Amino acid sequence: MALLVQKYGGTSVGTVERIEAVADRVLKHKKQGDDIVVVVSAMSGETNRLIGLAKNISSSPSAREMDVLLSTGEQVTIALLSMALMKRGLEARSYTGAQVRITTDSAHGKARIQSIDTEKMHNDLDAGRVIVVAGFQGADELGNITTLGRGGSDTTGVALAAALKADECQIYTDVDGVYTTDPRVVDSARRLDKITFEEMLEMASLGSKVLQIRAVEFAGKYQVPLRVLSSFIEGEGTLITTEENHEMEQPAVSGIAFNRDEAKLTLKGVPDHPGIAARILGPISDANIEVDMIVQNVSVEGTTDFTFTVNRTEFDKASLTLNNIARELGAKDVITNSKIAKVSIVGVGMRSHAGVASTMFRALAAESINIQLISTSEIKVSVIVDEKYLELAVRTLHSAFKLSEEGTIVQEV
Amino acid sequence: MALLVQKYGGTSVGTVERIEAVADRVLKHKKQGDDIVVVVSAMSGETNRLIGLAKNISSSPSAREMDVLLSTGEQVTIALLSMALMKRGLEARSYTGAQVRITTDSAHGKARIQSIDTEKMHNDLDAGRVIVVAGFQGADELGNITTLGRGGSDTTGVALAAALKADECQIYTDVDGVYTTDPRVVDSARRLDKITFEEMLEMASLGSKVLQIRAVEFAGKYQVPLRVLSSFIEGEGTLITTEENHEMEQPAVSGIAFNRDEAKLTLKGVPDHPGIAARILGPISDANIEVDMIVQNVSVEGTTDFTFTVNRTEFDKASLTLNNIARELGAKDVITNSKIAKVSIVGVGMRSHAGVASTMFRALAAESINIQLISTSEIKVSVIVDEKYLELAVRTLHSAFKLSEEGTIVQEV
Repeated sequence: MALLVQKYGGTSVGTVERIEAVADRVLKHKKQGDDIVVVVSAMSGETNRLIGLAKNISSSPSAREMDVLLSTGEQVTIALLSMALMKRGLEARSYTGAQVRITTDSAHGKARIQSIDTEKMHNDLDAGRVIVVAGFQGADELGNITTLGRGGSDTTGVALAAALKADECQIYTDVDGVYTTDPRVVDSARRLDKITFEEMLEMASLGSKVLQIRAVEFAGKYQVPLRVLSSFIEGEGTLITTEENHEMEQPAVSGIAFNRDEAKLTLKGVPDHPGIAARILGPISDANIEVDMIVQNVSVEGTTDFTFTVNRTEFDKASLTLNNIARELGAKDVITNSKIAKVSIVGVGMRSHAGVASTMFRALAAESINIQLISTSEIKVSVIVDEKYLELAVRTLHSAFKLSEEGTIVQEV
Repeated sequence: MALLVQKYGGTSVGTVERIEAVADRVLKHKKQGDDIVVVVSAMSGETNRLIGLAKNISSSPSAREMDVLLSTGEQVTIALLSMALMKRGLEARSYTGAQVRITTDSAHGKARIQSIDTEKMHNDLDAGRVIVVAGFQGADELGNITTLGRGGSDTTGVALAAALKADECQIYTDVDGVYTTDPRVVDSARRLDKITFEEMLEMASLGSKVLQIRAVEFAGKYQVPLRVLSSFIEGEGTLITTEENHEMEQPAVSGIAFNRDEAKLTLKGVPDHPGIAARILGPISDANIEVDMIVQNVSVEGTTDFTFTVNRTEFDKASLTLNNIARELGAKDVITNSKIAKVSIVGVGMRSHAGVASTMFRALAAESINIQLISTSEIKVSVIVDEKYLELAVRTLHSAFKLSEEGTIVQEV
């Protein structure tokens, strides 16, 4: 008998039929003797419908009122799922974020959970009830409704699992686990049985669609075992844990992530003196542009080249800002390129394996793929290549690191 | 400067355009220096959409979960209206029933308000904010979401006005006031400037669509001046107060109400001894059938005839129950008729005017309308007639009591 927190996203509860299927699954687990807390998102399409209503009224609606509006989406789902569970003879009880006392700060639209009062839930679980909680939402100390922002339902699931000391937090989604890479790019991509939080974080921060980075961070911090499963296909999914995989020799690389949405900007020939990086990135940050990779090489003849990447949607804004900075700093030139892609190899095994990077570079060179930029961390090596080589690079690396065999990851943006 | 509670029903907030129109009206009042608390219903159609979702899942959904589901309807409206108000430069803040601490009992789907905490609202009003409250809902002491049942938004409006000691509770609807009778039946029906709570109660209990009886009772009890206005047409509407109309000679009859949805059942020849009424109505009440008129005449030769009316939708159930009772009591016969209608004259002026009833009976007789049943109260005389005479009866009485001239009421079911 285990205590499971199961989170179902918008697609998994998108229709009355899908809600019934979720109820069937909960019933199955309950019959096996598990205690279940379900976290649900709004039915798919509902959040967009509500945003549409708001946008018809105001181009810049109040963040507080947006939260009041959007939080109704999950509230509808908890009621409907509870009804479906009760129809199956289960005792079920729904709670909004505010009702279950998910207390957050007051940052409407991107609130952070501060505390969860588990007393009510423990009483319900003791009484044999299934608890159905609205994801993505909470309330601040004054009782104002808040939402957790993007991917917030995953965060709710993990936070509840941590607060209740659940045995596992199961994230049901439309994919059946974490893959060595995107199966649409590499036919032989393989589902991983297990990966570590660190690897998943690198995958998520590189743009994985499977799990939101905040939820993974949260799960890692509180050591909540996290499992990604399909709500459509039966299977074991992928378990994300603190344990490294000791069952076999640790592979050097667990997976390959990639991102098509990057753009690259270089400031050439800037005088190389202390504080220059801050003088470049300060105005970029002030313009609310998020920077991904930052690369600065050693200086040659007193000047250096400074390169960074941004999301392609912010490319024009970043170019404009950088041209102003160039004039101020007396830089030689600004070179930009939005036709690039990032490919990364990720794996905790890298720590103890020399030569992983050189294997990567050699494999890419063998296919004549030019590397424009390199950036590394302890468990990741990322390169920027021309976007037309993206698929080729991913397939080449997938094969070079033997990821079709046991022990890996890869995911798309 | 007055404190006004304004309640807008589903049609008045049925589209984004209608919500904008409500915001314009609030702005106008606010500019005149009034403090405003707005109570809104769900956008028209929304409640039915939500009920449809629930019915697709369960034919008998949990009452607790229905309340969780349905309460989202008003929550959407409060957010949208607040956004519309803020767009106009007003400071606005929305509250759900639970947030504004409308505490109710735990009777889901038909909860009664027990208390309202006005501290938050007074703070907002002092800060110059417009408060937007979700009608129809509250929360019990354990924090479970409850709904007040049919017409609940009117009740919320009146309850807030009472708690805040507002100068007036304005109910905006799709009619521009209370009329001497239904203008669709009598062309010369006239809008009343004022009527008393007692008259309005008799009108409401007779099936008026304008205001829900609970809201009128509540307003009368706490002496909250209630005004019915159109949200579509400018005008003064009808004010419902404790004051009788002293500006002119009090007319005997203020209005005429009617109800097409009644059915009549008679138990003939029951032994007339103490407790017989209870033995007849007990099983009817046990079957959850609501009884409207009850008439028992003096007994002849030790037996009596007992007649009552029920809503036509419960006619079959009532007939079945009454036949069983007849057998048990040894009654001679059961006679039923579902093709009847009730017509009532209402007016506080009746108290001091003799001859009102005889004027009524004489007017009906002049048109050869047979009266099947008569029931009277201090400010009302109701008769049951064949349904085919309903319109004729209403027109005849409207004219007999000169209701087209100053000083009256009439309304349909």
